[in-house]
Amino acid sequence: MSHAPTFQDIIDAKSRITPFINQTPFLSCPPLNDLIGANVFVKAECLQPRGAFKIRGATNAILKRKDEAIAKGVIAFSSGNHAQGVALACKRIGAKATIIVPHDAPTIKLENAKQDGAQIIFYNRQTESREEIGADLQAKTGAILVPPYDHEDVIAGQGAIGLEIAGFANQKEIEFDYVITPASGGGLASGIALALEKLSPKTKMLIAEPLHHERLKNSLENGARIENAKGLPLSIQDALMSPTCGELTFPILYRNGAKAFGVKDDDCLKAIKFAFENLQIIIEPGGAAALALAIFGEIDLKGKNICIIASGGNIDADLFYKAIK
Amino acid sequence: MSHAPTFQDIIDAKSRITPFINQTPFLSCPPLNDLIGANVFVKAECLQPRGAFKIRGATNAILKRKDEAIAKGVIAFSSGNHAQGVALACKRIGAKATIIVPHDAPTIKLENAKQDGAQIIFYNRQTESREEIGADLQAKTGAILVPPYDHEDVIAGQGAIGLEIAGFANQKEIEFDYVITPASGGGLASGIALALEKLSPKTKMLIAEPLHHERLKNSLENGARIENAKGLPLSIQDALMSPTCGELTFPILYRNGAKAFGVKDDDCLKAIKFAFENLQIIIEPGGAAALALAIFGEIDLKGKNICIIASGGNIDADLFYKAIK
Repeated sequence: MSHAPTFQDIIDAKSRITPFINQTPFLSCPPLNDLIGANVFVKAECLQPRGAFKIRGATNAILKRKDEAIAKGVIAFSSGNHAQGVALACKRIGAKATIIVPHDAPTIKLENAKQDGAQIIFYNRQTESREEIGADLQAKTGAILVPPYDHEDVIAGQGAIGLEIAGFANQKEIEFDYVITPASGGGLASGIALALEKLSPKTKMLIAEPLHHERLKNSLENGARIENAKGLPLSIQDALMSPTCGELTFPILYRNGAKAFGVKDDDCLKAIKFAFENLQIIIEPGGAAALALAIFGEIDLKGKNICIIASGGNIDADLFYKAIK
Repeated sequence: MSHAPTFQDIIDAKSRITPFINQTPFLSCPPLNDLIGANVFVKAECLQPRGAFKIRGATNAILKRKDEAIAKGVIAFSSGNHAQGVALACKRIGAKATIIVPHDAPTIKLENAKQDGAQIIFYNRQTESREEIGADLQAKTGAILVPPYDHEDVIAGQGAIGLEIAGFANQKEIEFDYVITPASGGGLASGIALALEKLSPKTKMLIAEPLHHERLKNSLENGARIENAKGLPLSIQDALMSPTCGELTFPILYRNGAKAFGVKDDDCLKAIKFAFENLQIIIEPGGAAALALAIFGEIDLKGKNICIIASGGNIDADLFYKAIK
């Protein structure tokens, strides 16, 4: 078992990955401020290479063990965006990537990972465990396993966003009351929380997860991790389908006093339309969950300073049109 | 007649407008590098408030004469994005905006200007002169006229992008061979050229304009301004429909050694699709002209350092779907 990263690990991750990632913007949008009645900035992580923040954690984990990755390859199990991040990070250093993907992952995410040279192995989300498949393969090849969230290097890589949030707030001479972020396993949310507990301790995390799949809401209210029941209704927020939050990620979020909320698929579609018309960014349903929560959720955000994470933007054309028409 | 801005005017504009604009990213995109065979960064100005770079020049011009703008109002004539920039800049300081708009301007651009409190006056693009209508109104009200491109404050505001390009190149330790930008009247292109002739004199401007509407190509090859013929076929690149380049903008681009190229509407649609799938930004047809030129144009860009401007992202849902499906 890996342990939680330190603040210094996040600093190191940031400098390690900077040449490989985009400096994503904090978008101010007057109609959004009016709508929410707050001072809002959208951190557009959908603008990273391959369309999601996942490139950060993947790149950090792989670069940290670069020689080993090149010699023995890299394995990842992922619902899509992490797969793409790992595939691209491997391509850049000439390492072989093997990606273990649910059979119903969106086509566009698979295509991109394949384009970057990754080998794809399918599994059935309902009947098989991706963790077991990954561990088997790792035992056979000696490849590095890069988990999607519950790993110190992955959390540290995503946590670099927290440093950027603190730097931006400093530059604007504000203090963020809330960072609102989509979450699934909690790697992104906990990485940000870890950076901010040092740099901006008053900032609280608000977490958006798919309605009926509220593993973080249930766990945070319970004070201990609760796994989602099996056989829940499917959601279009395909990037947020982890059945559980992480052993490493949960305590960080619990310590932060984070609160989590279920978000309706329909509200994600409406948030995608809002972003199309007013922010000019493409967000996928899961990536839009935090924006949906901020606009449509029952949280009092009036007069607050808010940073909303738009975490990913890989969406099929037909679903996108359904949202914006 | 206004005169061309100085380099110092651009520096001043940058600090004047910084609190009101987004710090737009330079997006690196591995598939784009592969496609063009070059080291490419997309400067996503479509991510500015109201979806276009135009907020820069409008804000600079209006803030520079803030008291007058509040007392007597502001007039602008515009095909859409400049209108939105002026409307928003006026709203922010409490000035009244009157916008003179062609009758066939895209609905979304008008709606946004109206939402920001602007009064809209229509004119017929084929039979009336927006310049004459603007001058008449100005004479009656004493309002400030903020032209869309041929004005020192507007050029200086857009030129702030040039400072950012030079700063980014410096940070990446590269020198841009080309900046490729959409152009119509030439305010954006000349502002960037003016900043770069000081900071990066080897960088050349490549200009994308709608096929059959090549007022800059014809003017640059001729060594003097040539107006487009009347009655040209309409183009979906509605943001690039000025019949002529500016008296102020042309000499700057001519001095730079800029080259201009006609771009097909179909190539803009293909570039919009590429951006949807790989950059996660929304670009409108005119805003995609430079990306289209870089991908599909017959220019040798192999091995070069290139900055492509994505200048605007206000596009109707149906046209967007036509591009991406």
